[in-house]
Amino acid sequence: MPLTQDQIAEIEAARATSRTTLRAVSEGMEAHLYKAHEVLDHGFVRVIDYMGDDSAIVQAARVSYGAGTKHVSNDEGLIRYLMRHWHSTPFEMCELKLHVKLPVFVARQWIRHRTANVNEYSARYSILDREFYIPAPEQLAAQSTVNNQGRGEVLTGEEAARVLELLKSDAGRAYDHYEAMLSQEGQQGLARELARMNLPANIYTQWYWKVDLHNLFHFLRLRADAHAQYEIRVYADAICKVVADWVPLAYAAFEDYRMGGATLSSKALECVRRMLKGEEVTQETSGMSKGEWREFMGVIG
Amino acid sequence: MPLTQDQIAEIEAARATSRTTLRAVSEGMEAHLYKAHEVLDHGFVRVIDYMGDDSAIVQAARVSYGAGTKHVSNDEGLIRYLMRHWHSTPFEMCELKLHVKLPVFVARQWIRHRTANVNEYSARYSILDREFYIPAPEQLAAQSTVNNQGRGEVLTGEEAARVLELLKSDAGRAYDHYEAMLSQEGQQGLARELARMNLPANIYTQWYWKVDLHNLFHFLRLRADAHAQYEIRVYADAICKVVADWVPLAYAAFEDYRMGGATLSSKALECVRRMLKGEEVTQETSGMSKGEWREFMGVIG
Amino acid sequence: MPLTQDQIAEIEAARATSRTTLRAVSEGMEAHLYKAHEVLDHGFVRVIDYMGDDSAIVQAARVSYGAGTKHVSNDEGLIRYLMRHWHSTPFEMCELKLHVKLPVFVARQWIRHRTANVNEYSARYSILDREFYIPAPEQLAAQSTVNNQGRGEVLTGEEAARVLELLKSDAGRAYDHYEAMLSQEGQQGLARELARMNLPANIYTQWYWKVDLHNLFHFLRLRADAHAQYEIRVYADAICKVVADWVPLAYAAFEDYRMGGATLSSKALECVRRMLKGEEVTQETSGMSKGEWREFMGVIG
Amino acid sequence: MPLTQDQIAEIEAARATSRTTLRAVSEGMEAHLYKAHEVLDHGFVRVIDYMGDDSAIVQAARVSYGAGTKHVSNDEGLIRYLMRHWHSTPFEMCELKLHVKLPVFVARQWIRHRTANVNEYSARYSILDREFYIPAPEQLAAQSTVNNQGRGEVLTGEEAARVLELLKSDAGRAYDHYEAMLSQEGQQGLARELARMNLPANIYTQWYWKVDLHNLFHFLRLRADAHAQYEIRVYADAICKVVADWVPLAYAAFEDYRMGGATLSSKALECVRRMLKGEEVTQETSGMSKGEWREFMGVIG
Repeated sequence: MPLTQDQIAEIEAARATSRTTLRAVSEGMEAHLYKAHEVLDHGFVRVIDYMGDDSAIVQAARVSYGAGTKHVSNDEGLIRYLMRHWHSTPFEMCELKLHVKLPVFVARQWIRHRTANVNEYSARYSILDREFYIPAPEQLAAQSTVNNQGRGEVLTGEEAARVLELLKSDAGRAYDHYEAMLSQEGQQGLARELARMNLPANIYTQWYWKVDLHNLFHFLRLRADAHAQYEIRVYADAICKVVADWVPLAYAAFEDYRMGGATLSSKALECVRRMLKGEEVTQETSGMSKGEWREFMGVIG
Repeated sequence: MPLTQDQIAEIEAARATSRTTLRAVSEGMEAHLYKAHEVLDHGFVRVIDYMGDDSAIVQAARVSYGAGTKHVSNDEGLIRYLMRHWHSTPFEMCELKLHVKLPVFVARQWIRHRTANVNEYSARYSILDREFYIPAPEQLAAQSTVNNQGRGEVLTGEEAARVLELLKSDAGRAYDHYEAMLSQEGQQGLARELARMNLPANIYTQWYWKVDLHNLFHFLRLRADAHAQYEIRVYADAICKVVADWVPLAYAAFEDYRMGGATLSSKALECVRRMLKGEEVTQETSGMSKGEWREFMGVIG
Repeated sequence: MPLTQDQIAEIEAARATSRTTLRAVSEGMEAHLYKAHEVLDHGFVRVIDYMGDDSAIVQAARVSYGAGTKHVSNDEGLIRYLMRHWHSTPFEMCELKLHVKLPVFVARQWIRHRTANVNEYSARYSILDREFYIPAPEQLAAQSTVNNQGRGEVLTGEEAARVLELLKSDAGRAYDHYEAMLSQEGQQGLARELARMNLPANIYTQWYWKVDLHNLFHFLRLRADAHAQYEIRVYADAICKVVADWVPLAYAAFEDYRMGGATLSSKALECVRRMLKGEEVTQETSGMSKGEWREFMGVIG
Repeated sequence: MPLTQDQIAEIEAARATSRTTLRAVSEGMEAHLYKAHEVLDHGFVRVIDYMGDDSAIVQAARVSYGAGTKHVSNDEGLIRYLMRHWHSTPFEMCELKLHVKLPVFVARQWIRHRTANVNEYSARYSILDREFYIPAPEQLAAQSTVNNQGRGEVLTGEEAARVLELLKSDAGRAYDHYEAMLSQEGQQGLARELARMNLPANIYTQWYWKVDLHNLFHFLRLRADAHAQYEIRVYADAICKVVADWVPLAYAAFEDYRMGGATLSSKALECVRRMLKGEEVTQETSGMSKGEWREFMGVIG
């Protein structure tokens, strides 16, 4: 269970104190505030603060595009228009602050999204907890034989058991030695900033992560995608649910145009046009490489 | 007067509707929300939304630096410590959204601060209003004779009158012609995106501008500085007052360490040390250029 | 003609001095270095420096994706794969520095692309030249009657003549008064930072602009697009030609996947699939709005 | 020794091929290109490419500040002026691309500097090498007893031996198990993206890192500082040497104003003024906290 009793009490206390504000309020988001959405075996995602709602996007767009937006009469249509035409700045008017607990190897992927604000728990100053991500059996997958980056079939039997045993025992031993090196009983005790180097990449860390909605959508498009590693995708999925409650119109447009959409190259578009005219097009006559053609078939098939 | 009756009514309506929230609330900021702080002859700054308060900075710092922050017992001390040691990420946890009306030549300086979100009124889509910045007589300054970037004495007499007359009549004529070119009465009417090129740089534009507190402080340090052009400094000054009410502890630290502080070079520090030991140091023996020495004297004198 | 004799001499001198380097060299780019590509009536684009070439993109990708890229045997295939899958970081390994002379209203659009480095000529410190953009007759377009942001038919006859006359005379008068206000003959002379406010948005400015290839492609996709305003599009077009000579493989992939490609929503993809199965789909049965359907028809028609 | 024979041969080949270019060339930097500067036990820093030199900074500044820079007659004076007055954009005109090999826990600190381009070796796609950072005996420090973030005395005797033994054996065992889990001999073999989670934070990774000079100076100021962790400071020190050869004037200004300089608060400046007038100022009469006063004494003492 990812939360300590102290944390649960803290969340309840935070949710017990409501105040009045003149700011825009998203009722859907108020229901999420401070609550921990559990992810993986010890992780979570919590909304700590937010700014704006669907109306804030519309408000900014109407300032920017002025009369140009008047022919789009309703908010939903305008938000869909903005998303379709890559008008990203109105979405930047909303901001989200999350508290996330996640394994270090997930944090290393996540931090590559640079347009965000981060305050991470520092193992230089503090001592990390004994918490490691150990995959559930159904996530213990073999290397894909199709491509070099993905997972293949789930490991079974003795191999699965052996892997789990290795992950658990190595993590446990590394942490025992971490504590032993830090200990100041009967010895000086190694500096925290050094001792941490012994800890494996499945140890949990945590951070506050703040991002605007445009950049969040970019993150979600890449990380809630089927090609993303499972262990970060589950975080992206948890965030998607929160965002759907926060800015329902923007999220629906995002789902339609980004998550469910696809970019076709000029070659692919030309093939579609030829096919719609009744021509039989094959990879050989498409002008595309085999890889491209396979992906194209996946999109239109 | 910068605000229309419609705008005043809109502000009053926005301030009349309060809601409950579980988020952090800054009482000082609630008093500012939506209100227009007048700047120059037709401009304003209005707070549209905000995220976080002094506590949000402290909360992020305590996560980041963990046990490392425990010896700084109170929030004020911790915030001062963060500011003094250039720990900028906790300040990024607060966010401010402003609605600003400002002359185009001011907007051109302002936009150079890139780490912010902007939605500007578009003269490509909409027609600009007939509003121009005309300096107050006491701001009508001559070119500085000391440096190439600043202002010298205030113009007086006929010269001042002539300048004001030129600025007013050129702006008026340019706008008359803008309207004449746009007009579709008895003619086709020039495209808005072209007609706007006739308008001078003192015409007013407006935008939503959203920024985190760290980058806002950076903006304020440069633009509320005595060397900044007066016409942008008055906007920075207006924002300073708002920020002081929003995050009083952070703002006080900013004033002490950034606005009122100064960075001394290693040469300058060496001079201070020699002077404190009783040595008489001159520009010639300081190792500094004349310009540096003059600035140094200004700081310690 | 945009270049002064001094500038031409400077360019020739710069091109006369070649040196040896161990860095990657793009022969295509060397041919462009320092030369001014004329744009509009007084503008230009010049390459001042560059870093990297197609190989630099491949090199970075092979480090990042390691064995994962081995199945893409050749550089062209790998670069196309990166572009298709939005792997943007390898393209960030190339950098371009341009010297651009452009009207202020174009500069105002351009600067909205924040991920770039800029040093602009400052009218606070220096006096601007008497150079204004006056549209060529074939660019003097009426406001579009179809949408609020575009241009319609070209103005003709008296209206065209009148517009040109207004633009020219207002610019000339504004500049005369700018000089008159600045003049220190027989008067104090207004500060430069104030006098500039009288100048219209079609006056030329100039800057150094430095950007990585990924962000440059993003700029070009938006600004070389048919929906971009003509006056910025011609700059984007000029840059496209330079980039095609600099990184030919990357540019070809950009053309195929970005410029010539299109993003289809999940609704649009579903329509394509239904159509390919022989179903007759109309706007009413598509689930799309009229605007979306019209754009969709434009893409597949 | 950090380099393989293949890498050494590759470096020699790269350095054997010189070409002609019309671009700015820094002779100091040409001498560094591709060479590996060894850092820690298996790490290195190599210059892969660069753009610009001291002249590029001056060139950009003279465009920006125009006539305003004419009174600073020479390049050195102008560069010092820019540094002193925090005019950062001219320094952004230079760009550096490095190839760095570094332990993961160092990479995690480094990546927090967001304004840079990165392509990191991916353990999702590729298999990491068996290389771990094991501190040299003189770097095996105890936790500081003075503050929570630093190191104290060097460990000695049995404790030191025990720590080294734990770090080595845990790293070796973790890597053995990593290989065992990946192995496809007689089993399916765990996916790389999962197996990597078993590896400790002292394993080496590598990346291409590209940054402009302004942001590089910001990185160096924080990471070449005495308060930075030793293991990142040695990388910053190695980069400092390279930068000193690349842009000697800019680096000298950086050393004087940033590395050797200090920012004094308004309270501290007031104390300096009082002291220079002969007043005896103590912590109690300074208005500063004890921590601030101690730091102030460190600066002026």
